[in-house]
Amino acid sequence: MKIEGIQSRSIWPTPDGSVEVIDQTKLPHRFATIRLSTMADAMHAINAMTVRGAPLIGATGAYGLAFSLRNDPSDEGLDSAHAMLLATRPTAVNLRWALDRVRDAVRNRPRAERAEVAWREAAAICDDDVETCRRIGEHGLTLLRHMSAQKAGPLNILTHCNAGWLACVDWGTALAPIYMAHDQGIPLRVWVDETRPRNQGASLTAFELGSHGVNHTIIADNAGGHLMQRGDVDLVIVGADRVTRNGDVANKIGTYLKALAARDNNVPFYVALPSSTIDWTLATGGMIPIEERDDREVTTMTGRLPDGRIATVEIVPQGSDAANPGFDVTPARLLTGFITEAGICEANEKGLRSLFPDTQEAVAQ
Amino acid sequence: MKIEGIQSRSIWPTPDGSVEVIDQTKLPHRFATIRLSTMADAMHAINAMTVRGAPLIGATGAYGLAFSLRNDPSDEGLDSAHAMLLATRPTAVNLRWALDRVRDAVRNRPRAERAEVAWREAAAICDDDVETCRRIGEHGLTLLRHMSAQKAGPLNILTHCNAGWLACVDWGTALAPIYMAHDQGIPLRVWVDETRPRNQGASLTAFELGSHGVNHTIIADNAGGHLMQRGDVDLVIVGADRVTRNGDVANKIGTYLKALAARDNNVPFYVALPSSTIDWTLATGGMIPIEERDDREVTTMTGRLPDGRIATVEIVPQGSDAANPGFDVTPARLLTGFITEAGICEANEKGLRSLFPDTQEAVAQ
Repeated sequence: MKIEGIQSRSIWPTPDGSVEVIDQTKLPHRFATIRLSTMADAMHAINAMTVRGAPLIGATGAYGLAFSLRNDPSDEGLDSAHAMLLATRPTAVNLRWALDRVRDAVRNRPRAERAEVAWREAAAICDDDVETCRRIGEHGLTLLRHMSAQKAGPLNILTHCNAGWLACVDWGTALAPIYMAHDQGIPLRVWVDETRPRNQGASLTAFELGSHGVNHTIIADNAGGHLMQRGDVDLVIVGADRVTRNGDVANKIGTYLKALAARDNNVPFYVALPSSTIDWTLATGGMIPIEERDDREVTTMTGRLPDGRIATVEIVPQGSDAANPGFDVTPARLLTGFITEAGICEANEKGLRSLFPDTQEAVAQ
Repeated sequence: MKIEGIQSRSIWPTPDGSVEVIDQTKLPHRFATIRLSTMADAMHAINAMTVRGAPLIGATGAYGLAFSLRNDPSDEGLDSAHAMLLATRPTAVNLRWALDRVRDAVRNRPRAERAEVAWREAAAICDDDVETCRRIGEHGLTLLRHMSAQKAGPLNILTHCNAGWLACVDWGTALAPIYMAHDQGIPLRVWVDETRPRNQGASLTAFELGSHGVNHTIIADNAGGHLMQRGDVDLVIVGADRVTRNGDVANKIGTYLKALAARDNNVPFYVALPSSTIDWTLATGGMIPIEERDDREVTTMTGRLPDGRIATVEIVPQGSDAANPGFDVTPARLLTGFITEAGICEANEKGLRSLFPDTQEAVAQ
């Protein structure tokens, strides 16, 4: 995607063997990049949400493993770094998928080659992610084109959190079809859920859509049900942090509430995901660990003061407790379908297996 | 209720014929009062949400009408002031109810007496509201006592927005049973929905509960569904801005989403309301006008800077649009029941008529 006309990715290698990422905690107020050169850098970037979004977390973790192998290419070092990186965010499964992919690539290689092999594998993960998201976009585009043809006026799409190119390496998952539809002249209006407590919708999705010129309107997370009741939402598309093999979806906290409202109002609800988000080892969403995050995300809010400075304000009474579960699980029964790199399918095991038949063995384990 | 040990109401007359109210836009950071002496003062207080909550809006409107009659006690002046005050907030029905009550009280009185009669009627509306809320609390208390007896550990109650004593004159509606249960030693934990965009939960409900010593935890509006899924919510109690005679409930935006989640997880969902909130003239909730509020409520957030000053920060990218519907309508089918000053009933016309049989005539109109 482009920022101010310059073709950009959310993570890119530098000539000196580091990677740079966009500091997503500063958006939408400042566009700043951060250089990651060590495994500790990568862990901090994931944990502090400098980078976020399941695919980008995976890519950053892969580079983190490559960095660690420069210092300690032993089997023990490999396993230890894998475990430490995996612990940075417990809910997303792409992280494990990416770390496993790098570990598998280097395991039977001489120690002297491991760091270089890992580095190339991390780069390949990034390139593959771009291609995967492009395919998700193309499959989703067919759906949007079809729906747009059925109605007069713009197609109204609601999305929650950020599942755009900032969450991936390029294109995004939920937003990829939206960008492609916009580029093809399909009239759109995107309802952007603010997505408290971290406001990824109001800050990141709105920033992405605005940068690309897509018509969008930010709403409080509370508003989506009402908009569906009054007929102002034609479909919902969200991303996913982990999908279990029965089709249950762990995604940003609040996704479940929108899926309930969509079902109550007969609004189609799609989840866009790369197959790396599918956890074939888990039977149902109840088995997904849900990250409990720092309650200061709830008790504070960061934004621009009138003089342009960035400030964090406390918004609760002194002495009040807060709780901050980061994700919820939307049961497959509430979903219309999945949009994946291999096509669109029903949100159940049969649907997923129809698109990804090679996973039979993994499921049987 | 008490603030720092002093018995307080949310609105009270002063010896010189004005009223004072708590400036709820400053809470929870500052406790400040504002004096209202004219109809314009009252209109501004309602419109700027210095006062909010359906019952308190009604009480403030009633005093506003009394103020206007001091300047112009004519029939034309009465009707004009009634219309102007009614237009300040379109969704709550208590405002119309209170304005009608004052108008009816003064209509056949000599002009010279009208301001004084209206003043006494406004005071009576306040006293009646306190008694009404006390009764709502007692009826709700029987429910909480019963539910608490069925389980070990604290009773977990989720509430949305602020339907406490700050929204009324004293006690509150949804919070009245909670205060009474707390005072009787029933162990409670209240999940307080932040309630974006104006954060009445995080600022007002948390302030009220904290001032009274009730155990509470603030959550993002997105979190309630997940808490219900994991069994951490025993019941939901919210207030109402308007209830149609079939039992549909207009309340703060986002209420509908919580009702959907409660139904999906078999969590009882109660609406606490004074009968003045019932609009017997409307058959269903689809007929309730929904207020669209200033989008700056969505694009900004106000809180305390580290140095203690209050600041408003902008939280969205420059150039992004926002929309801000203030209320949604929860269909009666999602509700377990109503808690009113006359008792608890099912959320349908039969239930409401069983408690308020004198309204038959109004319904028949």
